[in-house]
Amino acid sequence: MKDKLIGLINNIQLVDSTIGTKTQQLLDNLTKPKGSLGELEEIAKKVANITGYERPKITKKFVFVVAADHNVVEENVSAYPQEVTYQMVLNFLNNGAGINVFARHTNAEVIVVDAGVKQNFNIVDKNFKVKKVNNGAKNFTKGPALTNDEVEQLIINGIELVEELIKNNIRKKDENFIVCIGEMGIGNTTVASTLTSFICGKPAYEVVGRGTGIDDERLKNKICVVEKAIKVNKPNINNPIDILSKIGGCEIVCMTGIILGCAFYKIPIVLDGFISTAAGLVAACFSCKVISYMFAGHLSLEPGHKIQLEFLGLKPILSLGMRLGEGTGAVLASSIIELSCKILNEMATFDSAGVSKKL
Amino acid sequence: MKDKLIGLINNIQLVDSTIGTKTQQLLDNLTKPKGSLGELEEIAKKVANITGYERPKITKKFVFVVAADHNVVEENVSAYPQEVTYQMVLNFLNNGAGINVFARHTNAEVIVVDAGVKQNFNIVDKNFKVKKVNNGAKNFTKGPALTNDEVEQLIINGIELVEELIKNNIRKKDENFIVCIGEMGIGNTTVASTLTSFICGKPAYEVVGRGTGIDDERLKNKICVVEKAIKVNKPNINNPIDILSKIGGCEIVCMTGIILGCAFYKIPIVLDGFISTAAGLVAACFSCKVISYMFAGHLSLEPGHKIQLEFLGLKPILSLGMRLGEGTGAVLASSIIELSCKILNEMATFDSAGVSKKL
Repeated sequence: MKDKLIGLINNIQLVDSTIGTKTQQLLDNLTKPKGSLGELEEIAKKVANITGYERPKITKKFVFVVAADHNVVEENVSAYPQEVTYQMVLNFLNNGAGINVFARHTNAEVIVVDAGVKQNFNIVDKNFKVKKVNNGAKNFTKGPALTNDEVEQLIINGIELVEELIKNNIRKKDENFIVCIGEMGIGNTTVASTLTSFICGKPAYEVVGRGTGIDDERLKNKICVVEKAIKVNKPNINNPIDILSKIGGCEIVCMTGIILGCAFYKIPIVLDGFISTAAGLVAACFSCKVISYMFAGHLSLEPGHKIQLEFLGLKPILSLGMRLGEGTGAVLASSIIELSCKILNEMATFDSAGVSKKL
Repeated sequence: MKDKLIGLINNIQLVDSTIGTKTQQLLDNLTKPKGSLGELEEIAKKVANITGYERPKITKKFVFVVAADHNVVEENVSAYPQEVTYQMVLNFLNNGAGINVFARHTNAEVIVVDAGVKQNFNIVDKNFKVKKVNNGAKNFTKGPALTNDEVEQLIINGIELVEELIKNNIRKKDENFIVCIGEMGIGNTTVASTLTSFICGKPAYEVVGRGTGIDDERLKNKICVVEKAIKVNKPNINNPIDILSKIGGCEIVCMTGIILGCAFYKIPIVLDGFISTAAGLVAACFSCKVISYMFAGHLSLEPGHKIQLEFLGLKPILSLGMRLGEGTGAVLASSIIELSCKILNEMATFDSAGVSKKL
């Protein structure tokens, strides 16, 4: 593995859960019955543990929408043509997609990333980043999707996205960011299914879903494609680079890098649905310490998502039957994470408000 | 019943579900797989049905935080002293309570209502409304909580809150509001439990919870108080005025009026937790047409809340283990309802964005 990657992964720290204990004391002094904000209190404590601040302030929220293509679409696994990946990137940049509406509503900044779209873009936009190492992953039913070198470089590119974000958004000592990840890539539920089946050790038929809306016939075919990909490539479960190169896809590799970068820089990272959580699985293969930096934004309708979240031990913040991707669920949840921190910073205490305590 | 009340209730209309069908067609043309926004699509259609606009715009969100006292606290049912109701109203007006943080975060306007607090307030504030008919409900283990006349007047006062809101917030033809309801009243989980046990026909031990956090001893006592209140008063299940006067409480009566007013004026109404949903139950006793104007903001940790929502056939938008009241869950959900309408108004269509359709 490249030196930069080894150094970063080895230096990811366990979150400091003593901070959350102090946060609970602060929460218990606010004008509300103890524990009455339920999950919001748990979320606030987790942000405290991650950032190291007992009363963290969230000053900015970002969502990386990472796009790439997958030549496994040759196997007839998707309901939409491959060109939709390219077209949707343009839609993101024109502010017309679902994630744009969600991000405006929650006051999050959208950063669109080309991590391996088939076409090249001739676009200059401060919120558009080209991080590709190729023009899409190969058809992994016929051999590895990517080379080891491509995988390592794409992970580093993902880490760099986090480093650029820190560099370009100056914050004071006690100011914290939230980073959400989402994706676009026709065929990528097939890739996420393959990774999930392999890493979680579940049969393909349990993790494969209808993606953008395939019929029964194609669903059966998709299950066979997942089984074949694992059989043909035989990834090494103890080597996440090998897993990603054989049965990964570019946006998932890049998101893995973003997750590792966020953990290293102590930034809360919000996963979206089935595809971004597949990146979460791989990131956890590099270092299980990473899991404590992750939030599960929502529970997707894709059947494999529940399996992934149970594997990671994460509880989804929202459960709205969504399955759009793009980071939509993550961004909506990030607003709730932000609110949990505002509670700590803005609510009165029993003393300051002159409210009587419990009998 | 007073003429105004009879007239209003008789003129509440069924929502027009043909509008939602047109909304689904609009949703299916947006750049996303069909149905991929799950519950958000259902929510958008429901707002369309309620307001009569196939592409409704939400321009303002309000939360009424309705406060009142309950002399059933003499029976030792609460973990906090009665004066906390008064103190928390001051906290709301000073922007220090949970609901103030939630409302600022979601850009909702807080309107605090004194519907029967023991103390009187000498406060002039455009967002503070005095609508009380007394200084709290009587101890209903010894006889009726309120008189029929008090109940009718408090319902009318609740309807007037909606009418004042419409009068004071001018909107264009296609602009819509969302109204959330929340409450504050030491002892009011006992009142809500009694109403729920009676209306839903469930034994007291199934609906009674720990409220602000009572111990096992007081929990047993609270169950006995609920049973006694029903036994002593024998409300008439076919007469909601009788139910409210015998086993109701002032904030619940006032919220019932707000719900009826919203249904009459075709405004989506978002219930909060166990207490406000008790008002929802009573409003449904006046006219079951009202239910289709209601959203269940969240699922509270109080055990009776699930029973209420099943009775009304409502699915909660959020489930975060919260049990604070004040409208906190409702306001957070109202932001998701608003988002569902923004999707309709702001997302590109396949044609406008030049995105290819399904194969």
